[in-house]
Amino acid sequence: MRHFLSTQDWSQEELQHVLDRARALKAGASSSALAGKSVALVFFNPSLRTRSSFDIGIVQLGGHAVVLDARAGTWPMEMVEGAVMDGEAEEHVIEAAKVLSRYVDMIAIRCFPNFQDWTSEREDPLIMAFAKHASVPVVNMETIVHPCQELALMMALQEKLGRVENKTFLLTWVPHPRPLNTAVANSAVLIASKFGMNLRMLIPDDVYRLDDRYMSAAEDNCAAHGTRFEVMTDVEAAYSGVDAVYAKSWGALPFYGNWDAEAPYRAKGAGFMIDDAKMALTNNAVVSHCLPMRRNVKIADSVVDSPAFLGIEEAENRLHVQKAMLEALARDMDPAS
Amino acid sequence: MRHFLSTQDWSQEELQHVLDRARALKAGASSSALAGKSVALVFFNPSLRTRSSFDIGIVQLGGHAVVLDARAGTWPMEMVEGAVMDGEAEEHVIEAAKVLSRYVDMIAIRCFPNFQDWTSEREDPLIMAFAKHASVPVVNMETIVHPCQELALMMALQEKLGRVENKTFLLTWVPHPRPLNTAVANSAVLIASKFGMNLRMLIPDDVYRLDDRYMSAAEDNCAAHGTRFEVMTDVEAAYSGVDAVYAKSWGALPFYGNWDAEAPYRAKGAGFMIDDAKMALTNNAVVSHCLPMRRNVKIADSVVDSPAFLGIEEAENRLHVQKAMLEALARDMDPAS
Amino acid sequence: MRHFLSTQDWSQEELQHVLDRARALKAGASSSALAGKSVALVFFNPSLRTRSSFDIGIVQLGGHAVVLDARAGTWPMEMVEGAVMDGEAEEHVIEAAKVLSRYVDMIAIRCFPNFQDWTSEREDPLIMAFAKHASVPVVNMETIVHPCQELALMMALQEKLGRVENKTFLLTWVPHPRPLNTAVANSAVLIASKFGMNLRMLIPDDVYRLDDRYMSAAEDNCAAHGTRFEVMTDVEAAYSGVDAVYAKSWGALPFYGNWDAEAPYRAKGAGFMIDDAKMALTNNAVVSHCLPMRRNVKIADSVVDSPAFLGIEEAENRLHVQKAMLEALARDMDPAS
Repeated sequence: MRHFLSTQDWSQEELQHVLDRARALKAGASSSALAGKSVALVFFNPSLRTRSSFDIGIVQLGGHAVVLDARAGTWPMEMVEGAVMDGEAEEHVIEAAKVLSRYVDMIAIRCFPNFQDWTSEREDPLIMAFAKHASVPVVNMETIVHPCQELALMMALQEKLGRVENKTFLLTWVPHPRPLNTAVANSAVLIASKFGMNLRMLIPDDVYRLDDRYMSAAEDNCAAHGTRFEVMTDVEAAYSGVDAVYAKSWGALPFYGNWDAEAPYRAKGAGFMIDDAKMALTNNAVVSHCLPMRRNVKIADSVVDSPAFLGIEEAENRLHVQKAMLEALARDMDPAS
Repeated sequence: MRHFLSTQDWSQEELQHVLDRARALKAGASSSALAGKSVALVFFNPSLRTRSSFDIGIVQLGGHAVVLDARAGTWPMEMVEGAVMDGEAEEHVIEAAKVLSRYVDMIAIRCFPNFQDWTSEREDPLIMAFAKHASVPVVNMETIVHPCQELALMMALQEKLGRVENKTFLLTWVPHPRPLNTAVANSAVLIASKFGMNLRMLIPDDVYRLDDRYMSAAEDNCAAHGTRFEVMTDVEAAYSGVDAVYAKSWGALPFYGNWDAEAPYRAKGAGFMIDDAKMALTNNAVVSHCLPMRRNVKIADSVVDSPAFLGIEEAENRLHVQKAMLEALARDMDPAS
Repeated sequence: MRHFLSTQDWSQEELQHVLDRARALKAGASSSALAGKSVALVFFNPSLRTRSSFDIGIVQLGGHAVVLDARAGTWPMEMVEGAVMDGEAEEHVIEAAKVLSRYVDMIAIRCFPNFQDWTSEREDPLIMAFAKHASVPVVNMETIVHPCQELALMMALQEKLGRVENKTFLLTWVPHPRPLNTAVANSAVLIASKFGMNLRMLIPDDVYRLDDRYMSAAEDNCAAHGTRFEVMTDVEAAYSGVDAVYAKSWGALPFYGNWDAEAPYRAKGAGFMIDDAKMALTNNAVVSHCLPMRRNVKIADSVVDSPAFLGIEEAENRLHVQKAMLEALARDMDPAS
């Protein structure tokens, strides 16, 4: 039995196998991998696209999805073992994970950090506790990484670019009125480096470097492939000659829980919106963004509405890669089938 | 491919075909028109009856419904093309419609006006934008009209009255503590006039006239059938000799966004509750109301609990007419089937 | 047609038949008792475990569950017949029950008391009104009793103890920061006494006696079986020689709606957490609690993590007993099948 918590826990070959199966499913292959099975979709943060694509994908595989709205505040859950539970939490994750494991065949979880204390939140404690105590596979629907989005992005890149190895991937910070979760940024550097792309990260200031866990993992991935990992603050240099541009906005970790002080650094990226002039510097690059996406703030309409934009395809691919991954997890549970 | 946004976009003959099929489904006919298909039910306003009847109907047609709770405030969506999205909206309806179209085979939407600015809200901008950008049929689950309720009402009238042509339909404003959406009132005048009924509207004051779009459409429908359309403020005259009474409360459009000033006009309708004395003036009329319904405020218990009341039948018919309409839309998508 | 509102409406033999079928379902028996049928799950209070186990169980029986979130406040419903509905309630339970009965084949309801006025709330008015006006079976998903939890508990006891008749069952009040619903406590005394167990209730003070309806029913059940019903405040005496310990915290009824004054009585139970020392006084008893459960407040970790703890098994059994009960209700609706 395996979980799908991060792409780093899976080899490139294993992930490529999932992507190949996703292409077959997109082309019309059918599967009854979840026939007679149920999957709990537990949302500690709301979702429309993730909820839809998981629910529909599970039904298409013959299974049944149970959507549980467990918003922070409505289902406070204790994660510390041995705790005296005299505070807000009515339930320990031990019981939640054990009981859900009796009802369903897989548990998928969305749980964002609270933007309060990165020291503890960087450990992704809730999904890790579920994975420890559940007796069924646990799937990450976005915590501090977003591995399903990674697979959907890589599928879209391969559809458009063919082999991605040694092509250059630019993750660019883009403007947004508020500091956001770093999950998709962490995920972008993981998946691009894992699949042998040269990796560039364009940020307004060094305070926007991602957590060391992800910077180091990307470095290790690049070292294994013999590719380059460059962090840049110069826009023109960063866009020069790249094959793929990926946009994401996030909050600077040193200001976690103290966001007002981040404002002057955020202002340095005011000109970072992706537009035609920047795209002209690239090697005729494709461009994408996970959705939702603020038009004319993160990416100009002229770029979004051009053939270079892969965002709709990437969003559709969520359905296909998730089906392929659930199928792979179901196969590992019951290797004889 | 067609949408179902308003009954005015469909001919009487087309709608009658849907109603005939609904009667067959109510009598026990089965259908697998949505086998293998998914439908997104997107609720910008909450619902229990619409949500239940759509969900169950879709399952009975062999399909799968995904219910998305997109309440105003939780999923603020940009509708203006070219907008610089630096406000509240995180997503443009363009992307929302395109991506949902990749996941599902139809999109049904409930989105009430905000009661702030009728000049813009009368254009029904959200569902119109979805219909423009979606590549699958869009179905109206109540916006500023409620076409599914119209079909359910007409089905109940035909079940009880047989042919409705040239019979007289009275839409009466009834009391309610608060100003409500005009959607069902707009819809009542559309469907009664479209099916050749003489139309009367009883209101406490001319300020309760409906938007010109619906008054004109009803006039056009009546002209095409050679029937009468009368707006009255005299209760006795209005009930006299009618064959069907339909109750609805709504807010007066001139006071939109400024409801306190409407109170004196609302007070003029204090005696408009449907009761036995008023019903005695009719031609042994049937009476109905969409649900929910405040007993002894809008309609007296003695009328609700009499055989003349069609409200439960009308509510049940929602299930059947929606199934028949979804079946018709599915057939149009795939004419060979 | 029968409802499942309380175990007291069913004979021990009928309930044992349901439990026997639940064991067969747990062992892998399949059933299509709800094929082509829909069940409305109406939640006036939120739920994750009940919602999951009902939804999954209904799907496993071939049916379809519609989950309706009808939280108090979002769907205020009138329950008084003849009421002039000029207050908050937009809908009368008469219409709600009649219309849902047209859409679905069964209606399951969760509706806790409001902790305001026990004199009216002890009549369980909402579910009773639904049962009166619905034309399909109504199932209790927890109101002021929790009969599905009762069956799950009894199933777990029988799995572990074999025949439970004449064994001794201790319901012990345990600490909790807030006064809780008495539903599970009421239910525990009903089901243990109904199945012929000697019943002990351990409470910090006589103010924690349960409502007379349940105390009397338990006395009647014990009289019918010739068993004992003892209410105790002495911890050592209460645990001495018992075969099963069941933990629950609840608020004292005399302080209903006036909870601050309950605090000194609650303090008397400060030492009532179940721990190893107390369990050592028993006849090697099993111990359980419905979930959620505060560890180290209600029951010490060392007891929860010991083989004596049946809570996870009891929670799993919810799925099986609910399936068996829905199957029984479906059979009563259509005896020929």
